[in-house]
Amino acid sequence: MAPQLDGFFSQVDSLSDHFIERLRKAVAIPSISAEEARRPDVVRMGNFLADELKALGAEVELRELGKQPHKEHLDLPPVVLARYGNDKSKRTILVYGHYDVQPADLSDGWNTKPFELTIDEKDRMLGRGSTDDKGPVLGWLNAIEAHQKAGVDFPVNLLMCFEGMEEYGSEGLEDLINAEGKKYFADADAVCISDNYWLGTEKPCLTYGLRGCNYYSIEVSGPGADLHSGVFGGTAQEPMTDLVRTMATLVDTNGKIQIPGIMEQVAPITADEETLYDEISFEMETLHEALGSKTTIFEDKKLTLMGRWRYPSLSIHGVEGGFSAPGAKTVIPAKVIGKFSIRTVPDMDIDKTNECVYKYVNEQFAKLGSKNTMKVFAQHTGKWWVASPSHWNFNAASKAVERVWNVKPDFTREGGSIPITITFEEATGKNVLLLPMGSSTDGAHSINEKLDKRNYIEGIKLLGAYLHYAAEEPTS
Amino acid sequence: MAPQLDGFFSQVDSLSDHFIERLRKAVAIPSISAEEARRPDVVRMGNFLADELKALGAEVELRELGKQPHKEHLDLPPVVLARYGNDKSKRTILVYGHYDVQPADLSDGWNTKPFELTIDEKDRMLGRGSTDDKGPVLGWLNAIEAHQKAGVDFPVNLLMCFEGMEEYGSEGLEDLINAEGKKYFADADAVCISDNYWLGTEKPCLTYGLRGCNYYSIEVSGPGADLHSGVFGGTAQEPMTDLVRTMATLVDTNGKIQIPGIMEQVAPITADEETLYDEISFEMETLHEALGSKTTIFEDKKLTLMGRWRYPSLSIHGVEGGFSAPGAKTVIPAKVIGKFSIRTVPDMDIDKTNECVYKYVNEQFAKLGSKNTMKVFAQHTGKWWVASPSHWNFNAASKAVERVWNVKPDFTREGGSIPITITFEEATGKNVLLLPMGSSTDGAHSINEKLDKRNYIEGIKLLGAYLHYAAEEPTS
Repeated sequence: MAPQLDGFFSQVDSLSDHFIERLRKAVAIPSISAEEARRPDVVRMGNFLADELKALGAEVELRELGKQPHKEHLDLPPVVLARYGNDKSKRTILVYGHYDVQPADLSDGWNTKPFELTIDEKDRMLGRGSTDDKGPVLGWLNAIEAHQKAGVDFPVNLLMCFEGMEEYGSEGLEDLINAEGKKYFADADAVCISDNYWLGTEKPCLTYGLRGCNYYSIEVSGPGADLHSGVFGGTAQEPMTDLVRTMATLVDTNGKIQIPGIMEQVAPITADEETLYDEISFEMETLHEALGSKTTIFEDKKLTLMGRWRYPSLSIHGVEGGFSAPGAKTVIPAKVIGKFSIRTVPDMDIDKTNECVYKYVNEQFAKLGSKNTMKVFAQHTGKWWVASPSHWNFNAASKAVERVWNVKPDFTREGGSIPITITFEEATGKNVLLLPMGSSTDGAHSINEKLDKRNYIEGIKLLGAYLHYAAEEPTS
Repeated sequence: MAPQLDGFFSQVDSLSDHFIERLRKAVAIPSISAEEARRPDVVRMGNFLADELKALGAEVELRELGKQPHKEHLDLPPVVLARYGNDKSKRTILVYGHYDVQPADLSDGWNTKPFELTIDEKDRMLGRGSTDDKGPVLGWLNAIEAHQKAGVDFPVNLLMCFEGMEEYGSEGLEDLINAEGKKYFADADAVCISDNYWLGTEKPCLTYGLRGCNYYSIEVSGPGADLHSGVFGGTAQEPMTDLVRTMATLVDTNGKIQIPGIMEQVAPITADEETLYDEISFEMETLHEALGSKTTIFEDKKLTLMGRWRYPSLSIHGVEGGFSAPGAKTVIPAKVIGKFSIRTVPDMDIDKTNECVYKYVNEQFAKLGSKNTMKVFAQHTGKWWVASPSHWNFNAASKAVERVWNVKPDFTREGGSIPITITFEEATGKNVLLLPMGSSTDGAHSINEKLDKRNYIEGIKLLGAYLHYAAEEPTS
């Protein structure tokens, strides 16, 4: 039986100015987690959220996480844990979001003041954090308020976990989630995270997969200190030469990874999966626009999406220790560190992938016959994640999308990683759904970040509708 | 007939404390040309020199060079031009030096205050500029004073050119030398520059050659802005991959340049030249010590010296535009610029070398089949220099070394470049000699720069003796 949503929907429309006002207040707090001087603003933003939640009748805890690692003079901002409803006859949905934002300054090239929500003639709501992730976080609060004012019973118990360090590596959160998996989060029947984006601008999506990321360093050293190339060029073996020649063997121009044992781990594509790609709304033109060029590896949509989502990729990020400033300097760097990473996919194993990388890089370096010293190691690793898109949690979200947007959602993966997704999955043992509110053009980490008014208001309806369908959906 | 030098020599010994005091005063002026805030100190140092020269009876001009290029709020420090003696029956020797110094700060790791001349238990005179180049510059002044006080007739007319921007690219000097080549410097019969170092610590040398330097950039660009490797990895061709693969084809681990047409330009070695190498005092152990490791290309002295002096070398200096900080960042850089340089030797031609580089790099990039855009260009070029070591100017210096140090000097080249050498040669049309005062361990651009007291005092005798032999040496 389809849930009765009309009352809730019309209440959201009636309250839209009020909800935009709430977002305006949130955007006005410059809760930049990466900047030490803004730490009080991050804390202020956590308190703002806690106060709003309390006013809506939620039970709220501000969980302190202690000192920031490597910055012992700084307290981490609190995690806002909240519960709305405690009816044993209802399902319990755990939602996650973050209230901190990326750095932003007018001088970076913003067209408007980044911490003043500005609505332009196209109903784009410009401001830092509008789409990442204050809009979606407030979406849950707004859904609660609209139910209250419409007199509609809230369909589930809602557990909320809002952190203030997402843009700085979610410091401290993993331990908290692991500790609370069977305690504060024990009742959760499913998890929903609204912190990513539609694939394009017109069609909503549900996201069921993320790539992992193994980040490597190749360190080559020889001389005791940087040398003058006039004095030593032609007499010393140069670490930079060895590094460049080693890194050149990792991947080719078309992204083909040259390290044996990587592609062999990739799960073969199934017929079902192929079908999903055919239906997805995605234009190469949109990609070219996002890229700012036509320098794509593939010319067609399907191979491109597979390249982003379901195959590993290897990127060389740069070199530490060399001359990296503009101009000319005739230095022979004594120690250089090349950085590259591999985006991982099912069924790649982190340890096996590391072994393949270490073996290959060592072999390639050995071929050079150099007296210099080389070390290759993983700076950090993170597992890929794929959920079952046929789980009731996804079915509920899919029906909500159809109800709100009148279209079946695309089932997408993301090329990037959101490590906290796996943490929630493993700590709760429940299905995790990524349910985005904003679109691909929102510019989450860029200048002129925005959330379309339509995506915000319809997004509030979507989050609420999802909870209704989640309450009713049979276990699959 | 050997010149009578005993009176001059014993006067130098008698005045040694006074000469060290003069160096102490000079070192105390922090004339750092690279630091804007120190510009008044650079000017003060020029004035100090001018005053000392006037007190010795020299005619002195402070030549202003106008504003510093790209820093129009800054006046360049003046060039000190001076003449001591104007006797048409005597030869005229033009000497060059610089009165500015490299940056230095106690916090860099100095054991003593860098701008306080400190003499340690081994009679090393520590202080910024002691050896580079205040000691040698004052050497000429001290030689004049010792002649005066010993009542010995000064054997030549001395033209002096002391600049204050050597450590910052000798801004403005080239134009002045070219303009004065047939004017202020018109009388010069030969040129002597004391601004380099012995090959080791025990045996003096005369330097007759320098390598040139062509500095190149390879710029690869594609996307409109830096990309997130999670989102775009596997879908876009990456400039960094293309750059690394192109740079990897330039040179091998043993320094062998892979670009056709470079080695083909190198002058074949002659029997005479081979003999010079055999006699040179140079130990691989000293090189290992300077290098801080044993990662040399060659195991023997002769090939090593040839690698430094008479063959070209190619060094890769770094990458601009990539991620070059410590830690991990998953960026796909939109535009990266690889920097490398080729040290050039006789008979390499700058234009021909550029053509070979451009052709090869373009071919290598084309092989990648990339949609990215590549540009290769020379940032700056500079010619090699080789003088005739059998010129009377060198003969005079050689005899002076034998007289002062009781040993025949090594005839050396340098792997680096001193562009002003060629400028003097071309502007005056005269032979240029490099006559070093300090030794290889002086640490000219490093912390704890020093000049051994012995090298300073005997160096003053050497400069004076050289002038006497230069006055008498028959034209060769």
